[in-house]
Amino acid sequence: MDYRFKIRFGDTDAAGIVFYPNYYRWMDEATHEFFNNLGCPTDQLMKEKLATPLLEAHCVFKSPGFFNHEIVLTTKVEYIREKVFKLVHCFKDGETVLAEGYEVRAWVSLEGGLPKSQPIPDEIKEQMQKHLGSVKTSMKN
Amino acid sequence: MDYRFKIRFGDTDAAGIVFYPNYYRWMDEATHEFFNNLGCPTDQLMKEKLATPLLEAHCVFKSPGFFNHEIVLTTKVEYIREKVFKLVHCFKDGETVLAEGYEVRAWVSLEGGLPKSQPIPDEIKEQMQKHLGSVKTSMKN
Amino acid sequence: MDYRFKIRFGDTDAAGIVFYPNYYRWMDEATHEFFNNLGCPTDQLMKEKLATPLLEAHCVFKSPGFFNHEIVLTTKVEYIREKVFKLVHCFKDGETVLAEGYEVRAWVSLEGGLPKSQPIPDEIKEQMQKHLGSVKTSMKN
Amino acid sequence: MDYRFKIRFGDTDAAGIVFYPNYYRWMDEATHEFFNNLGCPTDQLMKEKLATPLLEAHCVFKSPGFFNHEIVLTTKVEYIREKVFKLVHCFKDGETVLAEGYEVRAWVSLEGGLPKSQPIPDEIKEQMQKHLGSVKTSMKN
Repeated sequence: MDYRFKIRFGDTDAAGIVFYPNYYRWMDEATHEFFNNLGCPTDQLMKEKLATPLLEAHCVFKSPGFFNHEIVLTTKVEYIREKVFKLVHCFKDGETVLAEGYEVRAWVSLEGGLPKSQPIPDEIKEQMQKHLGSVKTSMKN
Repeated sequence: MDYRFKIRFGDTDAAGIVFYPNYYRWMDEATHEFFNNLGCPTDQLMKEKLATPLLEAHCVFKSPGFFNHEIVLTTKVEYIREKVFKLVHCFKDGETVLAEGYEVRAWVSLEGGLPKSQPIPDEIKEQMQKHLGSVKTSMKN
Repeated sequence: MDYRFKIRFGDTDAAGIVFYPNYYRWMDEATHEFFNNLGCPTDQLMKEKLATPLLEAHCVFKSPGFFNHEIVLTTKVEYIREKVFKLVHCFKDGETVLAEGYEVRAWVSLEGGLPKSQPIPDEIKEQMQKHLGSVKTSMKN
Repeated sequence: MDYRFKIRFGDTDAAGIVFYPNYYRWMDEATHEFFNNLGCPTDQLMKEKLATPLLEAHCVFKSPGFFNHEIVLTTKVEYIREKVFKLVHCFKDGETVLAEGYEVRAWVSLEGGLPKSQPIPDEIKEQMQKHLGSVKTSMKN
């Protein structure tokens, strides 16, 4: 799935380029759009006290991001396990890869307050499997 | 080095816990405090057109963070190479580890606009070496 | 001008609604889009060391904003003076007004470091005048 | 009440100064600290489904804020009505006033989902009255 957004002035810092935690904010946005597009909007999940909190997140930064640039963030599913899944994300500004990252998330119920992991429902697993793929994540040299 | 901060209401999201990109924002803050404490304040570095942009950042999330809680973020230096260094960060709320992460950063000059990597000055390397150590980063099971 | 965006999960707080400083972030985004649409992109202005920093900003909050909702932010020019202008912004979720705000901004040069106010160029004044209008800003009762 | 904080690198933008919506984030932080210091911590209020959402917020910007600077944010109560109160906030970097702002907030119950205004409890009113005062808010010339 492709999520398109524009880098905003407020996303930059005094070095004139994107302040790096924003890449994680955009991966989170892409993940929500991913579920929205699966026909499983995350605001509906939240009303059912379901969420997909992070177990782990990683990003490799390859080229600086500049404001007013239009970015394409491509999201794929690397794996789906019983209660956990991994999404890979690639940020491109035209042909330039800005960053590559991943998120490992759990499927949890918030019923009762604290997150408690749950099996991912079969119908959602099936939908997610249509997006299996990888984004090569290599260290910058 | 220990960096202490309080989780703020605005750091939470509709799930009632910390919105995860904030952990990277706090690692960035701790890194700046780390250099400030080395006697090498990052606002002075910036005036000399020097910065330490990210090559890679990673975080494992172990326990949710709640607002109004006081957090201790401990930062150590895992390695220092010619132009690159790695900091490890551990977030604790009392005895509870909330998250463990790392940042790999380059030492760059912004002279001329785009970041260009530079050897880390010897006097800064020496200061950093006093903080060598590790924070065990293990995947959540 | 209309600027359309979606409220994101990370824009909410533990009360389950938009964390209020985000409305100012969105007014800033709309202002940049306003200049982009005038044929005067703000990243180009920045390269010429020109910016439009805030003198004053205000917002009245009328109805809570919820994540995954699509918002239309309408921006108009209330006045243009020699070196200062005022934009009014109205946030709508469908027919519901979420918030009404304004920004008073200066036209400044960053040449030499600190912002220094400058007369707004005539060709930009002319473009802006095509967007004169008002958004009634009334206190919530 | 005085709330002290440091401007962080991530609070700046490509103009090299504070990105303005952060001033509202800091006013929100100061408001939470204000209630924490009254012996009425806002995380406890939240557990009782009580909150103080914004009706209106305003800020006048007088001098740019720079990263690594230590700021003192002074908060006073301008008025307390039955269900609404107004806080005034003044940001100082040493002797320099960076910004002056205010927030008008309601006392609400979140019981049942949507915010519903409630009379401010007498014991909280009494505590707040000890902090009556004003911060002159004048337009920048």
